[in-house]
Amino acid sequence: MPEKTFLLIVSLCFLVISLGGKSTETIETPRKIVSGTWYEIKSTTMNEIRPYAVHVPPSYLENKDRYYPVLYVLDGYDTRMRGVGGLIESLSYYDLGQQIPEFIVVAIPNTNRTRDLIPTKNDLVFNGEVLDKLADNSGGADVFAKFIREELFPKIETDFRATKQRGILGMSFGGLFAAHVLLKHTEMFSHYLIADATFVWDDNYLNRTISKFKKGLLDKKIGVFIGLANNDHLGELGITNRKWGNDFITALQEIKNDDLVVTSRYFPEEKHATVMFLANYYGLIDLFKNSEK
Amino acid sequence: MPEKTFLLIVSLCFLVISLGGKSTETIETPRKIVSGTWYEIKSTTMNEIRPYAVHVPPSYLENKDRYYPVLYVLDGYDTRMRGVGGLIESLSYYDLGQQIPEFIVVAIPNTNRTRDLIPTKNDLVFNGEVLDKLADNSGGADVFAKFIREELFPKIETDFRATKQRGILGMSFGGLFAAHVLLKHTEMFSHYLIADATFVWDDNYLNRTISKFKKGLLDKKIGVFIGLANNDHLGELGITNRKWGNDFITALQEIKNDDLVVTSRYFPEEKHATVMFLANYYGLIDLFKNSEK
Repeated sequence: MPEKTFLLIVSLCFLVISLGGKSTETIETPRKIVSGTWYEIKSTTMNEIRPYAVHVPPSYLENKDRYYPVLYVLDGYDTRMRGVGGLIESLSYYDLGQQIPEFIVVAIPNTNRTRDLIPTKNDLVFNGEVLDKLADNSGGADVFAKFIREELFPKIETDFRATKQRGILGMSFGGLFAAHVLLKHTEMFSHYLIADATFVWDDNYLNRTISKFKKGLLDKKIGVFIGLANNDHLGELGITNRKWGNDFITALQEIKNDDLVVTSRYFPEEKHATVMFLANYYGLIDLFKNSEK
Repeated sequence: MPEKTFLLIVSLCFLVISLGGKSTETIETPRKIVSGTWYEIKSTTMNEIRPYAVHVPPSYLENKDRYYPVLYVLDGYDTRMRGVGGLIESLSYYDLGQQIPEFIVVAIPNTNRTRDLIPTKNDLVFNGEVLDKLADNSGGADVFAKFIREELFPKIETDFRATKQRGILGMSFGGLFAAHVLLKHTEMFSHYLIADATFVWDDNYLNRTISKFKKGLLDKKIGVFIGLANNDHLGELGITNRKWGNDFITALQEIKNDDLVVTSRYFPEEKHATVMFLANYYGLIDLFKNSEK
C-alpha cells in the first residue's frame, strides 16, 4: 500500500473523527425532555449578540398547518424557562384542564438587566435615599423594546408558525419594562402579565406618565394582569410599591375602552421574592381563560 | 509500515467513528433547555420495560460531591415533568426565594395506569352505581410499589448522587397510590404529597384500612400534605370525596407521633381537573419549607 493512500485514509479517519468529535459534547443518546432550544441574533439595534430560547407546544409537530400565539418571558434563563414554560404548557394541557390556549414560549435572557429593562436613566431612589446606584446602567428600555419589535418578532414569526398575537410576562424590573411597553409601545403585545413591578421606580414613573400615553390605550384590544405581593416587611418602600401598583391598576381601569381588560390580584402570603409563580398562574388564567383553545 | 499496524489504525478509526456515529441521530447543535432524560429498566417484578425520566438540579454538575434528596412524580410523562419538575426547580432556586431544597426529580410514567396505581381489585363504584369498570385492571399497587422499592430506588441511588430521603407526588389515582403506600409501605418515602386523591375508591378504602396500618406510622419521621379540590359540581360524589379526604386527614393527625407532620389545604377555586399545580405548589412549600436548603 502506497504511503499516500495510507495518509489519505488516516486523514479521512481524522476528518470523520473530528466531525464526529464536534457532537461528542452534545451526545444525548437517551431521549431528553426539552423545555426550550437556544438561538441567537446578532442585533444591530443593540450592537451585541442576543440569545433567546424557544419552546413549541406538544401539538406543534403534529399539526404542521397550525399557527400559535407567542408568549415572551423576560429574565428568561434556563430555570425560568423550565418553570414558567412548564407552567404555560401544563395550563394549556389536560394536566390542568386546558385552561389556556397552547403557546410558543420565547425566553429572553438578560445581557445587561437594568440597562435594558428600566425605562429611564436614574438611580433607584426612595424617600431621597439612593438604594441602588443605577444611573450609569439604566434607561435602555426603549432600545430593548426596539430590538424585540424589529429583530426578535420578525425572527420568531419567520422561523416558527407564530400568529401575531403576542403576550409578555415580566416580574419586578421585568414588570416595570412590560408596563412601560404597555404605555408607550402598546401595539407590541396584546397581553401583558405584570408581576410585582418596581412601581417605586423614578418617583412613581408609571403613574406619572400614564396620562401622556392614555390616547394609545383607547382603541386597542388588550388584556392586562397585574399581580402584587405583600412587601410590608420592607416597610414604607414595600407599602408604597403596592399603593402605587394599585393606583396604576385603577388608572388603567378608568381608561374608557371596553376592549382594555385589566384584572389584578393581591397575594398576601407572598413577598416580592416568592410571588412570581402564583402571579403567573392566576395571570395566565385571567388573561386567557376565555380565549379559543 | 506493517499491514498489521495499518489494520489496527483503521480498525481504531472505525471504532471511534462508530462510537461517534451513535450520537449522530441525536445531534442537537443549538443547546437545549433540558427538563429530564429518559431511561428504562427491564423490570423483573413487573415483567415489562419500565421507562423513567430523571432531572438533576442546576447545581448537580458543579458540586460533584453533593448528594440530593429525590422526588418521585407519578403520572410522569413529558408535560408533567416539564410542569412539576419546573415548579420544583423554581421553588428551590432564587427565582422563588429558595423555599425548598434542591431535588433530583424522577418521573414515573404509566404503562397501565389503573392496574398499577389502584390498591384493590374493583370497579369504581359510588352509591351502588358502577362509574368505571376497572375490576379487570386494578389492584396492582403493591406490585408497582415493589418495583419502585426494589428496582427503581436502587437504580436511581446507584446512578445518581441521591440521598435516601425520598418524596412522592401523586394526583387523583396517583394520590390514592401515594396514600396507600403511606399506610402500607410507610418506609418507602419520608414525604407524601397527595393531590385530590380518589378517596371514594372502594367504599372509602383509605379510611377503612388506616386503623390496620396505624402501628407502622407511630415511629417514623414523615411529612404528609393533602390538597383537596372543590368538586361540588359533581354532586354527592364530589362532596363525599372531600368529606372522606378530610376524614383521612383527621385520622392521620390523630396518630400519636410528633414526627408525623400532616398538613392540608382546600382549594375552593379549583376542581379535580385543575387543582394539581396549586396543590403541588403549596404542598412542596409546606413539606419542605423548614428543610435544610
